[in-house]
Amino acid sequence: MKNLDALYSELTLKTNAKLVLLVLDGVGDIATAPTGNMTPLEAAKTPNLDALVGQGCAQGRMLPLAPGITPGSGPGHLALFGYDPLEFQVGRGVIEALGLGLELKPGDVAARANFCTLDAKGLVTDRRAGRIATEVCEELCAKLSAKIKKVGDVEVIIKAGKEHRFVVIFRGKGLEGPLTSTDPNREGLALLQAMPEAPQSAAQKKTAKAVADFYKLARPILAGQPKANGFLMRGIAHQPHIPLFQDRYLLKAACLAVYPMYKGLAQLVGMVKIEGPQTIAEQFQRYLKEYDRYDFFFIHFKYTDKYGEDGNFAAKTKAIEELDAALPILLQKQPDVLAITGDHSTPCAIKGHSWHPQPVLLHSAYSGNDKLERFTETGANSGSLGVFEAKYLIRLMQANAKMFDKFGA
Amino acid sequence: MKNLDALYSELTLKTNAKLVLLVLDGVGDIATAPTGNMTPLEAAKTPNLDALVGQGCAQGRMLPLAPGITPGSGPGHLALFGYDPLEFQVGRGVIEALGLGLELKPGDVAARANFCTLDAKGLVTDRRAGRIATEVCEELCAKLSAKIKKVGDVEVIIKAGKEHRFVVIFRGKGLEGPLTSTDPNREGLALLQAMPEAPQSAAQKKTAKAVADFYKLARPILAGQPKANGFLMRGIAHQPHIPLFQDRYLLKAACLAVYPMYKGLAQLVGMVKIEGPQTIAEQFQRYLKEYDRYDFFFIHFKYTDKYGEDGNFAAKTKAIEELDAALPILLQKQPDVLAITGDHSTPCAIKGHSWHPQPVLLHSAYSGNDKLERFTETGANSGSLGVFEAKYLIRLMQANAKMFDKFGA
Repeated sequence: MKNLDALYSELTLKTNAKLVLLVLDGVGDIATAPTGNMTPLEAAKTPNLDALVGQGCAQGRMLPLAPGITPGSGPGHLALFGYDPLEFQVGRGVIEALGLGLELKPGDVAARANFCTLDAKGLVTDRRAGRIATEVCEELCAKLSAKIKKVGDVEVIIKAGKEHRFVVIFRGKGLEGPLTSTDPNREGLALLQAMPEAPQSAAQKKTAKAVADFYKLARPILAGQPKANGFLMRGIAHQPHIPLFQDRYLLKAACLAVYPMYKGLAQLVGMVKIEGPQTIAEQFQRYLKEYDRYDFFFIHFKYTDKYGEDGNFAAKTKAIEELDAALPILLQKQPDVLAITGDHSTPCAIKGHSWHPQPVLLHSAYSGNDKLERFTETGANSGSLGVFEAKYLIRLMQANAKMFDKFGA
Repeated sequence: MKNLDALYSELTLKTNAKLVLLVLDGVGDIATAPTGNMTPLEAAKTPNLDALVGQGCAQGRMLPLAPGITPGSGPGHLALFGYDPLEFQVGRGVIEALGLGLELKPGDVAARANFCTLDAKGLVTDRRAGRIATEVCEELCAKLSAKIKKVGDVEVIIKAGKEHRFVVIFRGKGLEGPLTSTDPNREGLALLQAMPEAPQSAAQKKTAKAVADFYKLARPILAGQPKANGFLMRGIAHQPHIPLFQDRYLLKAACLAVYPMYKGLAQLVGMVKIEGPQTIAEQFQRYLKEYDRYDFFFIHFKYTDKYGEDGNFAAKTKAIEELDAALPILLQKQPDVLAITGDHSTPCAIKGHSWHPQPVLLHSAYSGNDKLERFTETGANSGSLGVFEAKYLIRLMQANAKMFDKFGA
């Protein structure tokens, strides 16, 4: 049986079409009684989105991955970029590094680390080092960075995160993850050794040695610390080999995101990161300027997710209205295909990501018209796109850009 | 690529949530002109279901297996229990045995058998022995049972079904199915020998010998019968190895069913059968009593299917109304997650099971609200769950019970 991705590739034609994927992070929501049985998309006043829908759109809902599964931002965006999140898994260390704005190179192995407290016998007494202040973490990471540049021929890059969290990157030849965690998972136990998950892999063995050597150098440096005299390392993995976006879709892609994590995820698939814009209006303005230089624009809007995580219905609604107010800037150069969706739902009632299929809107000269009046979850339920896996959105965008040849006679 | 079931397992968290799967067997139907273009769900007065929908439900339609495939009760329920019916196939002999209320033990091989008529040369002249009366069948099975307790070291258990049908169970060490059928499939031919489907399997060879020995002992006993002087054996298979429900979902499950087949199917996946209740009201009352003892309740209501099979639209409608009238008993202890659906559709116009996706309703604090007014096929068509494979329902129930960790960062 022919592989579906291979078929898509075979059918793909190069065109001059412009495609825009506008991601309202976590936009999907659920209607509950306390919010008048409305979702933020339903409650928001969105005259510009409404006008777009009136011009003719196809709508539907997308499963980020599979029924019931709640994705993190990594799998959520990989799916939107057309990569099956089950096939292309990105280690927690890599995601964390991307989230801190670190540039990863091919072959880098990244680990997420936690400072922890060890007793005189070396047993973990607090897996989070009493949640030390971020400033303390930054100070300790600076100290480690100053004293440890390399272990053997492997470069070490350390960057502080929030509270007790930091990231360590191992850069050098012949490294590979994944390794097992050094976290004993509960207090009262000693740190574990990071071990190759594939015991035969020379590259994993070399990486495990680098991690062990890093511990040897780092522990004496932390020895005098009252709380953060040790650390755990988890999600020790290399940046996965992902086919480049441009090769896969014949689309030269640019990323217009504000937050590092999303820039990092775009970079992972080979999109060009465009730096500078800080607001959605600025992102749209920059899109106008870059319009001729790229075929595909991934534009990321964070605040729908942020206020969903806060459970702040009014603020999430307002964020949608702000997005809507800026939309006419984007539409000054209307792309051939515009998709508007989320990477997942972040319902205010849940205060976190969820499994509910996110609504999606697709507008092109060939999208058809579902004759809905607005872009909402309830409307999208009866859209022509039905409920489908998010990884197919890019294929629908390509189809709407007339980028696919006919299959068979 | 990671296996999806393995991913679900990795993400599963133990909680204290209560989940109820209420199966209205064969509830799905199709609207036809003779019934005023309504389905029984549409025609029924269901004030309690309507009120539940008003509280906020997600709806959709479920494919029992794949488009166009009509399932029997076995695959229909396995899918509802979250087991892919293509992966977990249960032999007809096993289903038949469960249907007759026989308790199967691990390693048992079960066969469905038909009495048939043989001529002097041993050729089959009637594959159903003229559809002898059930009483005759019972008499002959009693006779066989009395005279044949064992073949070699293999215990033989015989139980009569309806008309010419009966079941034979072979119990002993080292037995295994499947074997080929002894049914020549048309009249005028001799009985076949039951043969191992995997010719190398010692266990299948031993089972084939037990079947042959059983024939040797049984045929003289039936020799004088005018019609039922022989028998065919089909679906000769052992109880499949199915991962236990509790291990797979971290849910301790109870079955509240009246008919033996559904108890048997629940038992197959390791649910505890709760005996006693004879009506849906009694089943709901018993659920209230058992509420604290289990995490998951499978409650089976037969009559929607029964009247669908009869083509009796009015009776099927009335059965739905009876279910609805009893619903407030269940809701005295509202579970965290309640799913109401069928195992398949049994349209009155078809008088049998069908391939039409059955409607499903999901109610929880996190189900969202599709803003539908009733639970019907037409309404479910525009629900947020879309059309999905029935095997995912349990995953959606788990998600709604907050039993899944987030996937990826």
